[in-house]
Amino acid sequence: MKPNIFFNSNLDSPEEWRAALAMHFGDFKFSMAGDTENPENVDIALVWTIPDGGLERFINLRAILSLGAGVNQLDPTRLPAHVPLARLVDPSLTRTMVDYAKTAVYRYHRRFHEFERLSRHSEWKFIPPTLTRDTSVALLGLGELGREIAGALRHEGFKVLGWSRTPKQLNNIQTFTGRDGLASMVAESDIIINVLPLTDDTRHILRRELFSHCRRGACLINMGRGLHLVEADLLEAIDDRIIADATLDVGTVEPIPPAHPFWNHPHILVTPHVAGLSMPETASKAIAENIRKAMAGERLLHQVDLGRGY
Amino acid sequence: MKPNIFFNSNLDSPEEWRAALAMHFGDFKFSMAGDTENPENVDIALVWTIPDGGLERFINLRAILSLGAGVNQLDPTRLPAHVPLARLVDPSLTRTMVDYAKTAVYRYHRRFHEFERLSRHSEWKFIPPTLTRDTSVALLGLGELGREIAGALRHEGFKVLGWSRTPKQLNNIQTFTGRDGLASMVAESDIIINVLPLTDDTRHILRRELFSHCRRGACLINMGRGLHLVEADLLEAIDDRIIADATLDVGTVEPIPPAHPFWNHPHILVTPHVAGLSMPETASKAIAENIRKAMAGERLLHQVDLGRGY
Repeated sequence: MKPNIFFNSNLDSPEEWRAALAMHFGDFKFSMAGDTENPENVDIALVWTIPDGGLERFINLRAILSLGAGVNQLDPTRLPAHVPLARLVDPSLTRTMVDYAKTAVYRYHRRFHEFERLSRHSEWKFIPPTLTRDTSVALLGLGELGREIAGALRHEGFKVLGWSRTPKQLNNIQTFTGRDGLASMVAESDIIINVLPLTDDTRHILRRELFSHCRRGACLINMGRGLHLVEADLLEAIDDRIIADATLDVGTVEPIPPAHPFWNHPHILVTPHVAGLSMPETASKAIAENIRKAMAGERLLHQVDLGRGY
Repeated sequence: MKPNIFFNSNLDSPEEWRAALAMHFGDFKFSMAGDTENPENVDIALVWTIPDGGLERFINLRAILSLGAGVNQLDPTRLPAHVPLARLVDPSLTRTMVDYAKTAVYRYHRRFHEFERLSRHSEWKFIPPTLTRDTSVALLGLGELGREIAGALRHEGFKVLGWSRTPKQLNNIQTFTGRDGLASMVAESDIIINVLPLTDDTRHILRRELFSHCRRGACLINMGRGLHLVEADLLEAIDDRIIADATLDVGTVEPIPPAHPFWNHPHILVTPHVAGLSMPETASKAIAENIRKAMAGERLLHQVDLGRGY
């Protein structure tokens, strides 16, 4: 087997990916936009986004493998409908997302966001610590990633709640579903984390209506996509003291423009889309497995249902 | 057994302590400075600090039980030398200290301290995440608390190193001892946490000489005592970019005065002595056990060697 791979990403290093794939395939072709010799011979498109020229010239393509955990960065109208598409489930991506969630949650739990503000105002104000069991954390999204984060936070002793589109049963985690379930869940949560996939159903799910059900003083962590959030509604909810503080790893537009009100906001921490990172060393294993499946004509792992959007 | 307990603290709630002790003793006396009827009948001094009148009037005292994990807040010249003294080892205190260490370590590991600065300057600057195994954390102090923190951080996947006065062997943790050991350890550490007891040997251990051995860009977390640190030397090490950032839960003087250069310093986060908290509900179990031992004339748990200082 000698897979012919086309690579396209402005975020991932082609050199690292070429080297990582070489650990899995004795012989393979690897090209990028501009240096693909015979497009009709390309088997696999390994891409973060669709290149300017599109993918139509790869007339014998067997699979499109996303370099991201999601696929919403791929314009669905530009995807060849007959070619199977898969998300990337990479242990490093999952692990870095879990660590990010722990960092952001512990920061709120131990009031470091308040101490940062107090430090700037030269104020020594004792706020006694509490135990993790007295802090409730809600996960929006209980897919691969949401379940890992929920389990990790449970392991730290937090009270964990979770909401998903379809009902789920998880150990020691109270689960919710549906519109009413979402409202009930956020009503009893100190910290709310979004890791939902971006679909027509979840776009703008973090909006005024949801915030109106939140416990006063709740903190929000958006690790999903910028379009999950109605940015003006968050600013209003913070002004109204409903939401106390937010950590936003994503923006409607990225990079978030310098004049955006999220910057230098005393109750918002922006992180520059760093929650999760695929690392070629570990991700290439998952990708290699899907390349083998595509070459053998088998169903891909983590294949995306474009109708559902993930 | 009807222990007669004298209580003195400006940090702990006497009502909560009285209620918590009532869960362990059917009958007991509980008094504070001003309302102790017959000082000669007092068996136990349960204290954070020594009251103004001293402890001499309690001529039949069987034990002095500290309400803190350390005893250095108790002036040794004012302690009756013949009465055994014990530190408090409380699971809540340990747990809150461990959580504080995780919070401060993850904040550095995932660069939240930099994103906080960048947020204030409206700057979107991608700094890729790394895995915990690529961050090394050094513990100064491997007592009860240091070992718990070391183990918890090891469990999170960090590379953990530890230094103690006497040589120690710990699972998966590289240990050091002696002056040279300390210099070797900090030379390979990204994050340095101090949880040493304060003694004549450890006073000012965090000083220029130690910083001179540090890896450039190391971060410091002081969860010990203010007097472990030479404050001017830290400011200098930060100016020289040897130490990148510091989290200080303690000050030489507390509260840290408003004009102190630690406040509003872009590379220092002050937290107001909140790393650990004894909670009467859990601490009273440990205290009750030592009260029983004192009443029975047995050796106390965690009895302090005043010569050594802990």
